[in-house]
Amino acid sequence: MAGYEWISFTTDYGTFDGFVAACHGSIARIAPQVRVIDVTHHVPPADVARGAAVLAQTAPYLPPSVHVAVVDPGVGTARRGVVLSTPGGLLVGPDNGLLIWAAEALGGIEAAHELSSEKWFPSNVSSTFHGRDIFAPAAARLAGGADLTDAGPAIDRDTLVRLPDPVVTVGDGWLEAEVLTVDRFGNVQLAAGGETLRGLGNELMINGMVSARRGATFADVGLGDLLVFEDSAGHVAIAVNNGRAVVVLSVQPGDIVKLTVRQ
Amino acid sequence: MAGYEWISFTTDYGTFDGFVAACHGSIARIAPQVRVIDVTHHVPPADVARGAAVLAQTAPYLPPSVHVAVVDPGVGTARRGVVLSTPGGLLVGPDNGLLIWAAEALGGIEAAHELSSEKWFPSNVSSTFHGRDIFAPAAARLAGGADLTDAGPAIDRDTLVRLPDPVVTVGDGWLEAEVLTVDRFGNVQLAAGGETLRGLGNELMINGMVSARRGATFADVGLGDLLVFEDSAGHVAIAVNNGRAVVVLSVQPGDIVKLTVRQ
Amino acid sequence: MAGYEWISFTTDYGTFDGFVAACHGSIARIAPQVRVIDVTHHVPPADVARGAAVLAQTAPYLPPSVHVAVVDPGVGTARRGVVLSTPGGLLVGPDNGLLIWAAEALGGIEAAHELSSEKWFPSNVSSTFHGRDIFAPAAARLAGGADLTDAGPAIDRDTLVRLPDPVVTVGDGWLEAEVLTVDRFGNVQLAAGGETLRGLGNELMINGMVSARRGATFADVGLGDLLVFEDSAGHVAIAVNNGRAVVVLSVQPGDIVKLTVRQ
Repeated sequence: MAGYEWISFTTDYGTFDGFVAACHGSIARIAPQVRVIDVTHHVPPADVARGAAVLAQTAPYLPPSVHVAVVDPGVGTARRGVVLSTPGGLLVGPDNGLLIWAAEALGGIEAAHELSSEKWFPSNVSSTFHGRDIFAPAAARLAGGADLTDAGPAIDRDTLVRLPDPVVTVGDGWLEAEVLTVDRFGNVQLAAGGETLRGLGNELMINGMVSARRGATFADVGLGDLLVFEDSAGHVAIAVNNGRAVVVLSVQPGDIVKLTVRQ
Repeated sequence: MAGYEWISFTTDYGTFDGFVAACHGSIARIAPQVRVIDVTHHVPPADVARGAAVLAQTAPYLPPSVHVAVVDPGVGTARRGVVLSTPGGLLVGPDNGLLIWAAEALGGIEAAHELSSEKWFPSNVSSTFHGRDIFAPAAARLAGGADLTDAGPAIDRDTLVRLPDPVVTVGDGWLEAEVLTVDRFGNVQLAAGGETLRGLGNELMINGMVSARRGATFADVGLGDLLVFEDSAGHVAIAVNNGRAVVVLSVQPGDIVKLTVRQ
Repeated sequence: MAGYEWISFTTDYGTFDGFVAACHGSIARIAPQVRVIDVTHHVPPADVARGAAVLAQTAPYLPPSVHVAVVDPGVGTARRGVVLSTPGGLLVGPDNGLLIWAAEALGGIEAAHELSSEKWFPSNVSSTFHGRDIFAPAAARLAGGADLTDAGPAIDRDTLVRLPDPVVTVGDGWLEAEVLTVDRFGNVQLAAGGETLRGLGNELMINGMVSARRGATFADVGLGDLLVFEDSAGHVAIAVNNGRAVVVLSVQPGDIVKLTVRQ
């Protein structure tokens, strides 16, 4: 009844095939009045953690939405589809950890339901394209005002599959954290929140090897120099002014980076 | 008069230039109420067969639409622009085979018209960008309710340019078929329909060299193993669980793949 | 009060992260009725001239819009944000030259305002993501009918940062011009307008080395041959029929190309 005017859509489908469009079609056929914001469809294939991170960092800036996300290497197996309810909107997708970080960013999980109502889906659901046949149609029905309880039975939040928590350790004069993402500009985002930088001062060493300075924006350091900053998603991040930190540091998501006070 | 609420849009324009946006602009200026679903703009340049395949496999999942598609190496020559009417919507684009497979997927061609009404186009039509100047404006007019017969004279369906039919041969215990597409995940789609797998059993050889198993979804075979399945578009396809079949098989669109019952 | 029904959006954000979606969210939360046409988000990182060229060549084909563009290596520094008013719409972005060519293509700058009204922005503006926190919200407010004068104080047009004018020199029987862009198809667009070709005849030499013919469209020359033509944006351009001129000529944006009458 109330429903949502917006659906956000996040996948690893790429834009070279018609997969994303077919899902847009599934939504348009059920809830033509709803509008879709594409978060990204360039999550690396099957990279659930990357999908979870980008959705969690984007969803809070969207209008109240049904967020449907599909990075789903287990499509067609016994893995559940789920709907999560949060103060900031609904989340729809596979139960593989993809949705949890976004749910927390939207205020936490208030209710979880299995997505199993066959009435919601076409009779000939494919075994390999649940985005088109299950998740997008469910998002469209929920945006159109269908009741969460009609999606399927309530499930215990504690049974939801979670990704491992990224490593973040804060010590006296040092910080160790996992690389969470690397963005288009080569900026290296750590799993640590910006507040962990307090007490480290303005002159830092990265992995004991390269010098960096604390600052607010790229131009706060010289051209080609390393900057440590709190990024626009509230995370500690490392950039190179007019360069690519990912190249200078030679790291990738999952690697551990250590920041220490420079002596 | 009725018109369409949706236009679908398929090209080889890429998204690095402003070409797609200029076409969206052409639509918005003529029929601002219409909404556009982008099928893909990453058809490889001038690859008409790839454009035809992706449109044919996506259009049936979209709401009733005017489907405009532009993969058009002959732009500016005597090749015709055409509008095709089907039970499932209209198709607009160059007469080079791009639209035919989609027309068949939408129920078959009921009428065909040449797209030649100069009243529909700007006075200064460019010689190299008919997407912006001819095809998108025509789609917008048709979506807005303009009559098909105003697009230009009716033409004989048999004069439409067709792509060669992809090779599909079914024998006793074997199936030979052309590779139609390779998707983002490296899955290899054959031109053969899923029904051609009947009678081949569950244990198969691909090109006499590699073993594969019949299944419904990726996890039906072991990690790294080859799966033969009916894909979400109803075609025979080959995948590797957690891998890329296109690399394992080393094939590309147009190549012939032979499946045989494993002895 | 009138406002605009459309916003166009041009950035170097790419589509691998959620940056573009977060900006769409900023717009949707302030002006949900407005619709967005994405011009491109694949401007090479920090390539202001490329962003300026693609926007200038696309904006005239869009409906009346607020055009927001962000290619902004100076984000977070003292560089101004600006709003430019033209007969064809408003432009919003950083004061680094990105908007000027488009403003001229839309009829010239009628008024310029600094974008400094803190009332328009969230309280916690980030230092590195002004697209989400400043430019998209401002575009949404202006599209929603907010008065230009509320954006901030009027500024002197002559103080706006401009990019250097690209080199174009026309001589007797020759033309020298900077490469402005290279498109998806490998076509090489020069900064010179199509009218500069008058008087050069139909048989040309490029850089004194390779022969080319004047024509209107690709098929006007043989397969693999070089074509000089006026492109769909009104510029002199060089193409190869069924090939990539950028490869044949081995040039890139900023290089100088010389066309001479063939003797």
